[in-house]
Amino acid sequence: MSHFKGYSCSLCKTEYDPVSILYVCPKCGGNLDVNLDYKKINNRFHKDDLIVRSEDSLWKYLPLLPVSDPGGTGTPIRFAGWTPLYSPPGIKKLLGLNQLWIKDEGKNPTASFKDRASAIVVAHAREIKAEIVVTASTGNAGAALAGMSAAVGQKCIIFAPKNAPPAKVAQLLIYGAQVILVDGNYDSAFDLTIEASNEFGWYCRNTGYNPFTAEGKKTAAFEIWEQVIDKLPHDSKPLNVFVSVGDGNIISGIHKGFKDLHALGWLHQMPRLFGIQAEKSAAIANAFFDNTETITPVSATTLADSISVDLPRDGVRAVRAARETGGQYLTVTDEAIIAAIGEQGKFGIFTEPAGATAYAGLRKAIDQKILSSDDPVLVINTGNGLKDIKAAMMAVTPAPIIEPTMISLKNHLKI
Amino acid sequence: MSHFKGYSCSLCKTEYDPVSILYVCPKCGGNLDVNLDYKKINNRFHKDDLIVRSEDSLWKYLPLLPVSDPGGTGTPIRFAGWTPLYSPPGIKKLLGLNQLWIKDEGKNPTASFKDRASAIVVAHAREIKAEIVVTASTGNAGAALAGMSAAVGQKCIIFAPKNAPPAKVAQLLIYGAQVILVDGNYDSAFDLTIEASNEFGWYCRNTGYNPFTAEGKKTAAFEIWEQVIDKLPHDSKPLNVFVSVGDGNIISGIHKGFKDLHALGWLHQMPRLFGIQAEKSAAIANAFFDNTETITPVSATTLADSISVDLPRDGVRAVRAARETGGQYLTVTDEAIIAAIGEQGKFGIFTEPAGATAYAGLRKAIDQKILSSDDPVLVINTGNGLKDIKAAMMAVTPAPIIEPTMISLKNHLKI
Repeated sequence: MSHFKGYSCSLCKTEYDPVSILYVCPKCGGNLDVNLDYKKINNRFHKDDLIVRSEDSLWKYLPLLPVSDPGGTGTPIRFAGWTPLYSPPGIKKLLGLNQLWIKDEGKNPTASFKDRASAIVVAHAREIKAEIVVTASTGNAGAALAGMSAAVGQKCIIFAPKNAPPAKVAQLLIYGAQVILVDGNYDSAFDLTIEASNEFGWYCRNTGYNPFTAEGKKTAAFEIWEQVIDKLPHDSKPLNVFVSVGDGNIISGIHKGFKDLHALGWLHQMPRLFGIQAEKSAAIANAFFDNTETITPVSATTLADSISVDLPRDGVRAVRAARETGGQYLTVTDEAIIAAIGEQGKFGIFTEPAGATAYAGLRKAIDQKILSSDDPVLVINTGNGLKDIKAAMMAVTPAPIIEPTMISLKNHLKI
Repeated sequence: MSHFKGYSCSLCKTEYDPVSILYVCPKCGGNLDVNLDYKKINNRFHKDDLIVRSEDSLWKYLPLLPVSDPGGTGTPIRFAGWTPLYSPPGIKKLLGLNQLWIKDEGKNPTASFKDRASAIVVAHAREIKAEIVVTASTGNAGAALAGMSAAVGQKCIIFAPKNAPPAKVAQLLIYGAQVILVDGNYDSAFDLTIEASNEFGWYCRNTGYNPFTAEGKKTAAFEIWEQVIDKLPHDSKPLNVFVSVGDGNIISGIHKGFKDLHALGWLHQMPRLFGIQAEKSAAIANAFFDNTETITPVSATTLADSISVDLPRDGVRAVRAARETGGQYLTVTDEAIIAAIGEQGKFGIFTEPAGATAYAGLRKAIDQKILSSDDPVLVINTGNGLKDIKAAMMAVTPAPIIEPTMISLKNHLKI
């Protein structure tokens, strides 16, 4: 039994009942928040019920999700979420932080954070008996939709820009999705899927358009709460969560998760959310800096393809996520992103550019003395480094090639 | 306190004490088995102590390992092993099997099975205070050594063939290893590292040469025991474990793990081990078919790079693993390997060629009626599909590219 009560528009506050398929607000186009019946949840569950639930996936939080159990036992959809936390002493020392956690979203079934959103959207697609789910994607969201769909036999179509990294396109195809590459960028793919879903009756997963994506992404907040916040001492300073931002849906989803927990009375101190954008794809950060909720499109050119977005589709809520929690936005250069890939790599952690963006932002926050050594910090690595080898190679010096002889080796080592 | 008692040669049976650094048998060149003090283990531990130990990594089995705890809390070395099991109803139906598990080794920190071996070798390197650890690798073993070394600050050097897949070479470099590519194949890299480690005093991790690699790989057997075998009904038919075979060290390591459990009295029925080789890299399968323990080198040319080996370095024990457990060897074509990548992919599971080889072997075993529907089966997917995108693309049809307009889309969909 889901505790889904309906939607309310994040801009005009209009409320909608839960029975119809809604994307953005029919009146003003604002992103819709999903409303849960907190009172019913509180009557039925204690927070400890969730904390001890044995399923090691995001489905342990089913009572806080607006969908029914999608089934799929034994398939990858049951392995989405519940990602590990690293806390490497070497990085803590390097950054001068006493408490640091790195959440490795690359461990999700399709190797990125986006499995969280796709798992929930696919669950909803099953509920409404959608024949086809469609999405536009720079790669990760599509791979996630393709993978989660494959797990339960849901048909899906993915539109991606033709310059998406080869590893991501390969994933889409391997998972058996119908893939259509467009000769354009993410934004043009986005618009096309909406037109197509309107005309053909496809169920559209687009990030920042479908209100269920944020409901999937909020599960990362639940895990951060269970894995870290709930174990902090009561007099601890608030946790500072660093997350990369493209269209704004991850940070707004995480914010929603913490708001859910707060509304339930289970979260005593709201974490501060730091949104990190690439300097060359910073429409949301710009709005934050200008103290406005008007999101002005940019011409995005960052190499961090997952967060390269001209017009963020969840910009307003993303601005609020930082503003309402006492966090802030920071922008980082592509050079800093590449350096962050290399720096984490030296401690055995391999992340894709969008993942490393959050770490690069943490670096900048420390340089700017926004944080001090006793501020607890959590960084979200949104995707596995194997997703984008071309970017990884920019962080390193290519290896030499020698003849397989001791003479060549000694020459090379100058011994 | 480790329960490491010494070595014995798998060929000439000579025993060696545990204090010196040994690789293969100094007398006959045979692979060395690591001996544990089973009596001491039995006096100190009950099997349930291990089964309920809360650490979700291979380190939960520390009492059965010949090394001390390497530390590295919070780093990727503490996340090696304890990989998930899929049991997709769709694949069970397709293959006509009632009980099927797929163990996803791509979830290891560096995304392959090899983290198990490297974690244990790095732990031993710390014990003996090795300055440098070196290995030859087709990619995965090197990435694993580089990643596990990075986690604990161990210096390492990796030799790989220059044609190793780009993703694997990128991993080596990202983890900060010193990487030297050789203008030759895996076997030439192997020989060079042994010469170099002898001359320079480096500690050599080479698979099938260093006796500790099998001790790491045996942890997969412990997990299969805990996750599957211990839960089977007492009158169950034996579990059939399918594993891809290159140099033979994974199957012999898994065999060692089951033998440890059997010696301890904790395993009541030995699983049957099926070794699957690529037709074009089948030196061990050839020996099995010829009913000999003499391994004759081949000129390996399979596209499954991780198991492309001219002279397998752990061939004898690999032959015995199948022979002594009532299993057998099967060979599969590269076409069958590619098809297996695609077939698992359609259910949301993405594996690299060497991983898919085991599944291709299962397919063949079913076709040949070696197994029936009530035989419980476990397939080991040894590596993540993101490791080898070029191979993945051979399993699929490339995606079309269209203009981002409804007209182009309708033309493409023929609507």
